[in-house]
Amino acid sequence: LPHTANPEISGWVERIRSGDARALARAISAVEDRRPEAQALLRALFPHTGRARVIGMTGSPGAGKSTLVDQLAKHYRKEKHSLGIIAVDPTSPFSGGAILGDRIRMLSHHGDSGIYIRSMATRGALGGLAATTADAATVLDAAGRDLLLIETVGVGQDEIDIVRLADVTVVILVPGMGDDVQSIKAGIMEIADVFVINKSDREGAERVEREIRAMQSLSQRKDEWSPPIVKTVATEGKGTAELAEAIAGYEHFVEKRGLLKRKRAEHWRTRLLEMLRDALLNRVLRQQFGERELERYAEEIAEHQRDPYALIEEVLAGLENVKSKI
Amino acid sequence: LPHTANPEISGWVERIRSGDARALARAISAVEDRRPEAQALLRALFPHTGRARVIGMTGSPGAGKSTLVDQLAKHYRKEKHSLGIIAVDPTSPFSGGAILGDRIRMLSHHGDSGIYIRSMATRGALGGLAATTADAATVLDAAGRDLLLIETVGVGQDEIDIVRLADVTVVILVPGMGDDVQSIKAGIMEIADVFVINKSDREGAERVEREIRAMQSLSQRKDEWSPPIVKTVATEGKGTAELAEAIAGYEHFVEKRGLLKRKRAEHWRTRLLEMLRDALLNRVLRQQFGERELERYAEEIAEHQRDPYALIEEVLAGLENVKSKI
Repeated sequence: LPHTANPEISGWVERIRSGDARALARAISAVEDRRPEAQALLRALFPHTGRARVIGMTGSPGAGKSTLVDQLAKHYRKEKHSLGIIAVDPTSPFSGGAILGDRIRMLSHHGDSGIYIRSMATRGALGGLAATTADAATVLDAAGRDLLLIETVGVGQDEIDIVRLADVTVVILVPGMGDDVQSIKAGIMEIADVFVINKSDREGAERVEREIRAMQSLSQRKDEWSPPIVKTVATEGKGTAELAEAIAGYEHFVEKRGLLKRKRAEHWRTRLLEMLRDALLNRVLRQQFGERELERYAEEIAEHQRDPYALIEEVLAGLENVKSKI
Repeated sequence: LPHTANPEISGWVERIRSGDARALARAISAVEDRRPEAQALLRALFPHTGRARVIGMTGSPGAGKSTLVDQLAKHYRKEKHSLGIIAVDPTSPFSGGAILGDRIRMLSHHGDSGIYIRSMATRGALGGLAATTADAATVLDAAGRDLLLIETVGVGQDEIDIVRLADVTVVILVPGMGDDVQSIKAGIMEIADVFVINKSDREGAERVEREIRAMQSLSQRKDEWSPPIVKTVATEGKGTAELAEAIAGYEHFVEKRGLLKRKRAEHWRTRLLEMLRDALLNRVLRQQFGERELERYAEEIAEHQRDPYALIEEVLAGLENVKSKI
């Protein structure tokens, strides 16, 4: 095993795979903080991945996502699944809030080691939250969690990128939202494999359903799947089993049609480009100029003493010249 | 002028600078579609930039941003400013809607050539909307527009990145939003130089003001600026002059303290990293492997026949080996 030759990394991988929660937490932290050892760890974990089903759940703030995800987690625990939950909220105002939130939610599962919850609120200076979330999912997958629930606020492109890494995407709507919120929903309509109308005991649930149907009638999916609409009241646990059934229905459809490979290949195409962009930039920042020069260049550009486009060409020519000299 | 030696590019630059609206529109389209000629054009335009004041305006969907921006534009037109408006809405469901929206808004300004409006709703496969918006702002700046208003939906990280390129950031709130929306607002609290409470004739305006004050009392800005709160009713044009005054107040503060250079240097630092990431990836995709190989690699990774981390290392080693052979 040439790549896990590092005994520290191999030991870490073993502990993660044996279910050691502290080793797992440390791994996700390393990934989140983009620490140098994360790359070697991810590489050593990769051969042990690809088994987990990944379910993405997204919706507007206030749609009741966390409650619904918790209910769904309880449902899957009864079926003896081992779960990982990644809650991504880039809009969260407090950086410390994520950890506190994890503890509160962990408590609601009575210290059940079959559910591992992790929140992510910050993103690194380089690279997006989607990449970090994908890496965290890789760690949980390698740790033997067979069901991953990725929960995010469905309002921006970042969030759409995050749920795109899922095998199944659930979009959660609620009755009683304004017209502008409708247009946001329309923006994520095309990524929904299953719709949920949560808080469906509220007035307006029928209207939301009609609106979804109307939007669906306007366009047809390439895979010809017709996303079902499930009504839930997450706070009372109503509709959870039906939601799990709808998710399984889509998974069955995908399996029957042999679409999972294509879906995962598309995911890896995007992810590979992101990984490449990060790796190449890091290489240039290490070899051609450092943080201090970067600051200086930025100041010079701001004062119009340097042309940014010429600078980029210089960096590329640096690679180019090396090449032509061989 | 070695970089504008291309006569087509120099002619284009001349037409843009002389106020030719079609040349301007074609330039922004080239930037938006990331066409090959865009890079040469941006480089040729860069020496003519740096003069425009850039005002970023963000708020939740339904906050009345467009109306407020239009009112502010009218106000600045009376002061004989030449305006460029870039409306960015990644949540917009219809790709054609942006153009239609532009036409409708243009009409409201009675064909006034002193206001140029452009919407951006889509983003390219590579690179973010923030980079495209920054490039479009560069074009408008070079075209001699002395005031740029950049309007976006303030809900995701992308949108925060977009308003960050502005010299002044205005955050628009409205009364009567739920608790979750408050937390979104908290996420963008720190980037606001000026707050607007729009629809301030509605119930709850005082409460929103109290909440902003409470949040402000919890933290102090590094530059010690205390963001003012302006109440507006954009549909009636109320408070527009006061908003323009508040914006000018912050600009005066920034000028007096000599902070603009630092702000623009920070902006260029972020933008330079983005430009580098894109340029490096494009180089690798041209020199080391193409789109077809990328698809194949992604499929192989999805089927666990290839290790993505090893692939990245191979690409980097490709650069490395070349270097060590000199």
